[in-house]
Amino acid sequence: MSKIVRVNLTKKEVKLEDVPKKYDGLGGRGFTSTVVAAEVNPLCNPLGKENKLVIAPGLLGGTNCPNSGRVSFGAKSPLTGGIKESNVGGTLGVRLAKLQIEGIIIEGKAKDGESYVLFVNKDGATLKPSNELKNDLVYNAVEKLRAKYGEKVAVACIGPAGEAKMAAANISVTDIDGVPTRQAGRGGLGAVMGSKGIKAIVVDGTDAPGVNIKDKDSFNKAAKIFADTLKKDSISGEGLPLYGTAILINILNEAGALPTKNFSSGRFEEANNIGGETMREIILKRKGNPTHPCSPGCIINCSNVYKLEDGTEITGGFEYESIWALGANCGIGDLDIIARLNRLCDDIGLDTIEMGDTIGVAMEAGIVSFGDGEGAINLLKEAEKGSPLGKIVGSGCTCLGKVYGIERVPQVKGQGMPAYDPRATKGTGVTYATSPMGADHTAGYVIAMEIAGCGGKVDPLDPKGKAELSKAFQVATAATDCTGLCLFVAFATLTDERANPAVVDMLNAMYGLELTGDDVTKLGKKVLRTERDFNKRAGFTKAHDRLPLFMTKEKLPPHNTVFDVSNEDLDSVHED
Amino acid sequence: MSKIVRVNLTKKEVKLEDVPKKYDGLGGRGFTSTVVAAEVNPLCNPLGKENKLVIAPGLLGGTNCPNSGRVSFGAKSPLTGGIKESNVGGTLGVRLAKLQIEGIIIEGKAKDGESYVLFVNKDGATLKPSNELKNDLVYNAVEKLRAKYGEKVAVACIGPAGEAKMAAANISVTDIDGVPTRQAGRGGLGAVMGSKGIKAIVVDGTDAPGVNIKDKDSFNKAAKIFADTLKKDSISGEGLPLYGTAILINILNEAGALPTKNFSSGRFEEANNIGGETMREIILKRKGNPTHPCSPGCIINCSNVYKLEDGTEITGGFEYESIWALGANCGIGDLDIIARLNRLCDDIGLDTIEMGDTIGVAMEAGIVSFGDGEGAINLLKEAEKGSPLGKIVGSGCTCLGKVYGIERVPQVKGQGMPAYDPRATKGTGVTYATSPMGADHTAGYVIAMEIAGCGGKVDPLDPKGKAELSKAFQVATAATDCTGLCLFVAFATLTDERANPAVVDMLNAMYGLELTGDDVTKLGKKVLRTERDFNKRAGFTKAHDRLPLFMTKEKLPPHNTVFDVSNEDLDSVHED
Repeated sequence: MSKIVRVNLTKKEVKLEDVPKKYDGLGGRGFTSTVVAAEVNPLCNPLGKENKLVIAPGLLGGTNCPNSGRVSFGAKSPLTGGIKESNVGGTLGVRLAKLQIEGIIIEGKAKDGESYVLFVNKDGATLKPSNELKNDLVYNAVEKLRAKYGEKVAVACIGPAGEAKMAAANISVTDIDGVPTRQAGRGGLGAVMGSKGIKAIVVDGTDAPGVNIKDKDSFNKAAKIFADTLKKDSISGEGLPLYGTAILINILNEAGALPTKNFSSGRFEEANNIGGETMREIILKRKGNPTHPCSPGCIINCSNVYKLEDGTEITGGFEYESIWALGANCGIGDLDIIARLNRLCDDIGLDTIEMGDTIGVAMEAGIVSFGDGEGAINLLKEAEKGSPLGKIVGSGCTCLGKVYGIERVPQVKGQGMPAYDPRATKGTGVTYATSPMGADHTAGYVIAMEIAGCGGKVDPLDPKGKAELSKAFQVATAATDCTGLCLFVAFATLTDERANPAVVDMLNAMYGLELTGDDVTKLGKKVLRTERDFNKRAGFTKAHDRLPLFMTKEKLPPHNTVFDVSNEDLDSVHED
Repeated sequence: MSKIVRVNLTKKEVKLEDVPKKYDGLGGRGFTSTVVAAEVNPLCNPLGKENKLVIAPGLLGGTNCPNSGRVSFGAKSPLTGGIKESNVGGTLGVRLAKLQIEGIIIEGKAKDGESYVLFVNKDGATLKPSNELKNDLVYNAVEKLRAKYGEKVAVACIGPAGEAKMAAANISVTDIDGVPTRQAGRGGLGAVMGSKGIKAIVVDGTDAPGVNIKDKDSFNKAAKIFADTLKKDSISGEGLPLYGTAILINILNEAGALPTKNFSSGRFEEANNIGGETMREIILKRKGNPTHPCSPGCIINCSNVYKLEDGTEITGGFEYESIWALGANCGIGDLDIIARLNRLCDDIGLDTIEMGDTIGVAMEAGIVSFGDGEGAINLLKEAEKGSPLGKIVGSGCTCLGKVYGIERVPQVKGQGMPAYDPRATKGTGVTYATSPMGADHTAGYVIAMEIAGCGGKVDPLDPKGKAELSKAFQVATAATDCTGLCLFVAFATLTDERANPAVVDMLNAMYGLELTGDDVTKLGKKVLRTERDFNKRAGFTKAHDRLPLFMTKEKLPPHNTVFDVSNEDLDSVHED
């Protein structure tokens, strides 16, 4: 029987609860958003005891369905002030699912200066004081935790940024090697974890009962078909394993949609130096690993292990978004410097996308110059120190823009934009504008059609029909985020007609249901409605579903287009 | 004939325009809010070229009506993101009115680093480069400007904070001695002025045509009655001239509503050391001036000139709000230190209320300690330098709270609260919560009844009926803010039945109208509706008409009350 682990830091109390009816059968983002919407006062301070950090594996988590290991973190976001879900790979989701834990709800607040580890295993959960980990960098803290609790534990850990409650703080999760290369990056959820007084969550899966599957044969059959669709797809089966997500650098640059130097151009002259093809060559030369699964059961293997010239394993999970953010957007064309920046972000516990946006705005403010890699490194080191400048940096691009009086800040709802300029990928722009999550590509990855052409190529520069597309993607994503499936299954689900039915078949076989594809769409819509309703109660309106004004006025080279999806179209996304 | 001065900093263009019908007959806040609502995109960046800084004297400005010299500044606020009006005394309003200028509209944006003076006289207006004033402290800049343009000019000037576009930057205005002791403090309008590239506005009233009054005899008769009501009132005729507004320190302390140490108590043990009675003694001993008019025609004289022990004239217009903010709220009980802080704020160009709130939150964050006067001075000096910490401080308490992860931030809509704890003055709390201006006592000064008992004493601790009262005050204030009358005429209008009719009679005599008291109420409602509508378009909802959650949960000593006006009551304020 699935359980909920409820942890109260004010009372230092940990309870195992039966899953109440209202939360029954929820997974991933469905669980986190439902709990946050039901239990958190939308007007609370995100760092206060009224906020809750909610963690949940997906509905297919812990099974042999490929790429189903994502785990969702949710809370009211310190960055946006709205509801937030951020999901991540690694081993945490699988471990929780196999322990039959539907979700963890962390509430209340420890006293200032207290630090705890939440330890979870087959016998339940306990809070353990962890003063020895205070202000430890993430890699260091994880090493200590694995030494203490065993090499095989899954760890979710925050860095000094989360402990200092910086609004761009992430939560790092260990990958299959036990290295914290995976980040639930967006929305500052690491600050929520820090505000509770939790430095890390350690999950020991030893002797876990494993997941219950009602009809194993049907499940296995569907899982096999699903695996086949992923393998046969040219992106998830070839491009991503070969070059990782950084394959997108040259593609987006070619498309004129790679945001460069704080979103002032869609082309970066040094793009090829930091693209997936170059990265693969470097990794092979230095005997790193260009093709690595982040999560057990991953068959896409878009992750990697990146070494410096001297052989130091500097970073892993070195992804397109991070390379764009800390590279092109800062005018930095040197992969080694970007790798160092990536490691610093992961160690300090800061979201790489938000940091790329923030450093870009800092460069626009003249704090350091575009292209100044050492300057960028120093900004992150300030964040590590917790100096005033570092605290501003750690608070994200919207905050830095306000403090320095900068107008060109690429954000929606206070969250910095990811690696696709909305003026040259307008469906993605609709997602940025209208997602309850703030600017977030994963909330509705229209890029799959606008750039990759999966399921039919659409013109990324044309505003027409993009609201409809974004809506369809947002709904599908909200449902996918309930299952624990990785976003990258979308390439197959868009192009191989066997893929979606296989997912539905797995859900039905596992839970003894008779869902149809329509039910999955309904689930996605329900999750979005729940999130929108929370945001509405938190004070969000249509006025928040807009891109910054400068993007509707300032033309982006090389296409010299502005974001011109109409407000009516934007508002149509959430009409039913 | 009245004119509008329209200044475009992008084009470096100054035009004298006839007043269009839609702006005809508007004054003060009525003019600024109407123009901002009509001409400014509510979704613009407040520091961008789309925002406009609007300046207007009141309808009775430039006449011999006592205390009618207020001038309104308006824009989209960088602090709240909503519409803002901030009015101020001094000589500017009178000069503009006598030049028959209904309003100044400053639009566009100079290039970064450009600095201009807008010079206005009987012949029109011109933009003059003013690189020599860049980053000058306000007192210094004003001295240079008076040396250049003549002793008698009125000056509105920003300090380094406004030039750096800090969100708590004010606009200083010269008083009858030509000293910049008067501040349009709230909402960061100095940053809007700075973003335009305007360092100062200099108004030379030489040979001004003066105002037109249709029926001078009736006007003078009504003005005389009105003056009599101000003189006879015990507060505006006795208390304020004698002790200044600082008379309120001991009164509010006694009432348990003087926010102390970042709103953690309603009593300050050192209140008497910083109260009006003590201040008067000190001023008299040091041969300052305890009774000083800020504006020509002021007969209340609540201002003052404060000297240090060595005779240095350190500050003037040393007011209750500033003394509370920089004193009690920071746990500082030494008037000389508070005077130095006040002067620093005025010189750097930062709002004293916002700075008191910000330093209070900085003290809660442990950056400096409560009571540490030199520490507080250093924080302001950081702002003067424009260091990262200084920029955070200059961005106001909400920003500092976010950057340092502090939960207890006394603000509404991003603007710090003034000198009345809403848990012990609940009608004032309703004003903080529901005013389109953000937390602002002047938007609906229910204190006049809750504390001063004018027009009937009400229990400040009782939540009942307070929404209704706040609404009445907000409507009356919005109308008063159109006239140029000082807020302190309210004591007379609440207690002397001759006062309000006299104001209506003056308006009728001046403009040849036949207004009734009801029309004035309608005017106030109209202004509020215009402002609410702008804010709605900017994304504000009922969720923004709330006090911070901690004030509804954390009891305030000594009465140990929370803010318990219901949300329904709060929402009733703007129902018609």
